[in-house]
Amino acid sequence: MKLRKIERRNAIKKEIEKNPFITDQDLSMLFSVSIQTIRLDRTHLNIPELRKRIKTVARKNHERIRSIDGSEIIGDVINVSPDKHATSIIKVDEDSVFTRNKIARGHVLFAQANSLCVALIHRPIVLTRDSKVEFLQPVKLNDTVRAEAQTLDITNKYFTIKVESYVKNALVFRGTFKMYYTSEDEENG
Amino acid sequence: MKLRKIERRNAIKKEIEKNPFITDQDLSMLFSVSIQTIRLDRTHLNIPELRKRIKTVARKNHERIRSIDGSEIIGDVINVSPDKHATSIIKVDEDSVFTRNKIARGHVLFAQANSLCVALIHRPIVLTRDSKVEFLQPVKLNDTVRAEAQTLDITNKYFTIKVESYVKNALVFRGTFKMYYTSEDEENG
Repeated sequence: MKLRKIERRNAIKKEIEKNPFITDQDLSMLFSVSIQTIRLDRTHLNIPELRKRIKTVARKNHERIRSIDGSEIIGDVINVSPDKHATSIIKVDEDSVFTRNKIARGHVLFAQANSLCVALIHRPIVLTRDSKVEFLQPVKLNDTVRAEAQTLDITNKYFTIKVESYVKNALVFRGTFKMYYTSEDEENG
Repeated sequence: MKLRKIERRNAIKKEIEKNPFITDQDLSMLFSVSIQTIRLDRTHLNIPELRKRIKTVARKNHERIRSIDGSEIIGDVINVSPDKHATSIIKVDEDSVFTRNKIARGHVLFAQANSLCVALIHRPIVLTRDSKVEFLQPVKLNDTVRAEAQTLDITNKYFTIKVESYVKNALVFRGTFKMYYTSEDEENG
């Protein structure tokens, strides 16, 4: 879709508001212009580059995360609605892939999903009880993985959380996590 | 059990042969002597300290691991019988625990078990398809976790592997991993 400059800039602004972790490359494909044009548009719109956008959003979310220190989360949490749902993204780097085939190692996707579950639950102590996970498509070096966690059920001891992870729009990983928590009373008791 | 020096040294030698990753502390408790005495006994018997013993055993096992570079395995593989069973151990360090409660993070035990499955399968390409895991007891800072993987089933596409992880004799983690593999023919085809 080719738009006039002013329309395109408005559309880019909306697109980034909707999805703050969209890359310049994705935008350039979406609007059929060069990456350089997207960068100029962003500068004009005063929208920082992806890395900075993520950091800003992640910082804002830290105060809403209770069970874990921000630095301990695998991936950047880009939104969290305590006890309900949360999203994080991770960029697959050399350390996360098998040397031989450059495919992401299973435990990296597991770690992202699992620590997102811990971040989501707004209680002082949260531990994983059990989990069932599926690796649906190979994730490659330099892919950006977006994990979306959603609470399915809460009992007096456990949260059950569903996590779905995507590379662009492709579902690559799916898991269910049963998380044990202690409430404040127990911690003080 | 308190033994005379020569009996104790023979017993220590046997104990280490049986279980090369037993710690000096475990031995000192087993034989009711000080850790210093155990160290002297080991020196006399010409048995290196735990860390060196592990490295020696791990090195021997590398040539028997096909699907993964030795350095990519989470934990030290102390024995592997290709396509059948394998054992690895991991020492839980500061990086592997939650800062707040010093309990090991779930994905660390998952990573040890998952990469042991990859190491066990003697094929050029191995990827995790799905997994079901249970965290049965909290694992603490400085614990040594021994993971034991055993093949349950092999089809023309998948291995099903059971992993049980222990701290001393306590079962702390249990999982089943369905692992996809390609045979040599497919790789060349």
